[in-house]
Amino acid sequence: MSEKLPKKDENFSEWFSTVLSAAEITDFRYPVKGMGIWLPHGFAIRKNVLKIARELHDETGHQEVLFPLLIPESFFQKEAEHIAGFESQVYWVTQGGLSPLEVKLLLRPTSETAIYPMFKLWIRSHADLPVKVYQIVSIFRYETKATKPLIRVREITTFKEAHTAHATLEDLMQELDTAVWIYSSIFDRLLLPYLISKRPDWDKFAGAEYSMAFDTLTPDGKTLQIGTVHNLGQNFAHAFDIQFENETGSHEYVYQSCFGISERVIAALISIHGDDRGLVLPPEVAPFQAVIVPIYYKEKEKEVREVSEQILSKLRKAGLRVQFDDRDDLTPGAKYYYHELRGVPIRVEIGPKDIHANKVTLVRRDTLKKEQVSMKSMIERIQQLLDEITENMKTTAEQKFKERVFSAKNIEEVKKIVTSRSGIVEVSWCGEEGCAHELEEEISGSILGTPVTEKEIAVSECIVCQKPGKVVVRIARAH
Amino acid sequence: MSEKLPKKDENFSEWFSTVLSAAEITDFRYPVKGMGIWLPHGFAIRKNVLKIARELHDETGHQEVLFPLLIPESFFQKEAEHIAGFESQVYWVTQGGLSPLEVKLLLRPTSETAIYPMFKLWIRSHADLPVKVYQIVSIFRYETKATKPLIRVREITTFKEAHTAHATLEDLMQELDTAVWIYSSIFDRLLLPYLISKRPDWDKFAGAEYSMAFDTLTPDGKTLQIGTVHNLGQNFAHAFDIQFENETGSHEYVYQSCFGISERVIAALISIHGDDRGLVLPPEVAPFQAVIVPIYYKEKEKEVREVSEQILSKLRKAGLRVQFDDRDDLTPGAKYYYHELRGVPIRVEIGPKDIHANKVTLVRRDTLKKEQVSMKSMIERIQQLLDEITENMKTTAEQKFKERVFSAKNIEEVKKIVTSRSGIVEVSWCGEEGCAHELEEEISGSILGTPVTEKEIAVSECIVCQKPGKVVVRIARAH
Repeated sequence: MSEKLPKKDENFSEWFSTVLSAAEITDFRYPVKGMGIWLPHGFAIRKNVLKIARELHDETGHQEVLFPLLIPESFFQKEAEHIAGFESQVYWVTQGGLSPLEVKLLLRPTSETAIYPMFKLWIRSHADLPVKVYQIVSIFRYETKATKPLIRVREITTFKEAHTAHATLEDLMQELDTAVWIYSSIFDRLLLPYLISKRPDWDKFAGAEYSMAFDTLTPDGKTLQIGTVHNLGQNFAHAFDIQFENETGSHEYVYQSCFGISERVIAALISIHGDDRGLVLPPEVAPFQAVIVPIYYKEKEKEVREVSEQILSKLRKAGLRVQFDDRDDLTPGAKYYYHELRGVPIRVEIGPKDIHANKVTLVRRDTLKKEQVSMKSMIERIQQLLDEITENMKTTAEQKFKERVFSAKNIEEVKKIVTSRSGIVEVSWCGEEGCAHELEEEISGSILGTPVTEKEIAVSECIVCQKPGKVVVRIARAH
Repeated sequence: MSEKLPKKDENFSEWFSTVLSAAEITDFRYPVKGMGIWLPHGFAIRKNVLKIARELHDETGHQEVLFPLLIPESFFQKEAEHIAGFESQVYWVTQGGLSPLEVKLLLRPTSETAIYPMFKLWIRSHADLPVKVYQIVSIFRYETKATKPLIRVREITTFKEAHTAHATLEDLMQELDTAVWIYSSIFDRLLLPYLISKRPDWDKFAGAEYSMAFDTLTPDGKTLQIGTVHNLGQNFAHAFDIQFENETGSHEYVYQSCFGISERVIAALISIHGDDRGLVLPPEVAPFQAVIVPIYYKEKEKEVREVSEQILSKLRKAGLRVQFDDRDDLTPGAKYYYHELRGVPIRVEIGPKDIHANKVTLVRRDTLKKEQVSMKSMIERIQQLLDEITENMKTTAEQKFKERVFSAKNIEEVKKIVTSRSGIVEVSWCGEEGCAHELEEEISGSILGTPVTEKEIAVSECIVCQKPGKVVVRIARAH
């Protein structure tokens, strides 16, 4: 708590790691690299974010389940592209108790190869379809790159993965739309701006037909992939022999999708909305939406405490998540600092003067603006203020994001934008892999892919070879 | 769903494994022994049980956190008794990607050795105490005994473990009382009967001063340990060097407790309340508290559906978790069978006759009794009925349990009770370990320990050596 925060826009990386520990989100001093602890405040935010994810999955007919963590080697190896994509990243369990295991087991790096053998058992006929399940679990990846809390870790503790199987390609395509809708809705409710891109073929999920990804931007101008949706076609169905009997009695392979988000969503939430005083949390996911800070003066202490408690009970009755900070070893100023750091959307100050005037003082976290309201209109004003904060946070985040999405006509321009860490650049491309790699190398950035849901963007000639362009691709520096 | 259930009292073990898959609780056909999947219905029950556990932990000032799964070998080895107790049961991760790891990591079999190194970092002064945290995680134990779904598994997927540190022994003792209160409250709300015993010294948690355990009985007369509370004294504090500066400026070691429950609680819930038709769920944790089954007759279908939907919306508005089973490929009879198997507390039947009489038919799951109520008093009656079901399930479970707790005066009597699988026997004991082991061997049962919270029980001479008895111990066959 006594750590001083660096300026967010000057040194984002330092700011990020300092705010994580200062605001008691995570503690990455754990003795294994890339693995950390969710502290109580971080855990509470995580819980509220997952609540939104669960609601949206349940509402669209996905059912929550839980699969084992350990996968036998032989199952992991069934889909050729999949194993090629993941084998350098898996942790292996080779010993049980004091003796070696007969069958080597791996810690799931993702759960296709744990789930699909069961799909084979569950799916018999078209009446069993669709199957739509999801789970929220830890996955493990033996990262060789530098690890970063919440962004690149070896234990991903908050992996929400959904897996579905369908009778027809048409049903699959509809499910992919639903998946995109679920993730868009989650990010919208978290007030996070994003672009959806179809990843280039060489960057798709190992085993997929194609992958779509949601990218946002952190304040250092790097992209952060916060969600992916994969069309698996019938690849895994063939590898795991998942067939069903259709209405005419013949057997067909199912069509599948999977889609995932992780604690990177929370990294984005913190990075995008935070400021030099610490977290700024959207009211929907803030563990406490308001905190009451009493201003005690001699002789008036009892009265201030009584009024504070009345207000606490009123606000709770109105359905708000509110805390009364009655600690006696901190000054009001120290409490302001503490709750600002933790991102509480509204501070309610109550002192003898407020009571005398039958008012309270409200301070909003996003703009730090102060106002006095009458006791009578307090609840209504707080509810209104929470909406205003939400609206303002959304607008601010979107505006900053839009300012960092550029288009460019030549490589020099792209280079300038990308190396100055300014964001994402859209350029025209002929579709040839060679040109794409040349571009990536030239500017030390990577291609995010082509726009998925946005309206058409005008295409001119390929920025590399100058042949007629086919599509627009996005390029940026990535985390 | 088409599996026929064996009679519960004739073949409990078969009944248990059949009901788990038939009612879609778990699927243990996963290709790794002792590891299974939580299916949607099982997951929903689990979620409601955990909701109770979370409420009670939060209410008593415990904070939810999440620690890494992997523990470095050197940390695991810090407490000598602890490693001796667990080393034959741990899974070892020895390889990351394609190369061996420099430091061997183990999958937590319980989290003391992951959590206490962080306690050392977090605790500086008396002002940092107490620390009271809990987490709900998967733990791993390489069981060599036969595995049983939810009862003896290799991945325990639902381990709620709490860990606390205190400045004084007095504070620790108070925390142990709180822990016993939390678990008693959880089991009471799940309508599960239990006895609390202080485990004999040779059966305590590895590294503890002493352990208390909650035991219940499954229908085959075996005890099932469903919760444990451990006084760790200062053992781990010494091993992990967890000291704090007290008010006078000198350094002291903290006093610690830990306490855990697992999916065995759900095994008990299913075993104790279920019957020959399947699950019987306490209304508080049933995913759906009532199901509406429409009885369609030609021409009246539309009307029945409309009334059903009105009732659904009314009951939901009243805060009940209700489902409308409108599937068109099942007869009402098949639906009755389906929801009885899944343990839905109340079935609401609605047919043209009911509508004509402005009534609905209610069938309670626990007694299968049927009654008609007027549409007007329906909500009130359903709420009342849920309370009656809760009360009846509690009384029934307690009565069955009490009938299986015996006292005995000689070894022959104990033998007779224990080998006929009748339950728990209380006998007097001199306190010598030799006598205890002789008794255990003689009757092939095990000693649960001495009563913790119950009122005093008269002690006569030791059942083995006939010297004056000191305490009463409990003995039974265990899972």
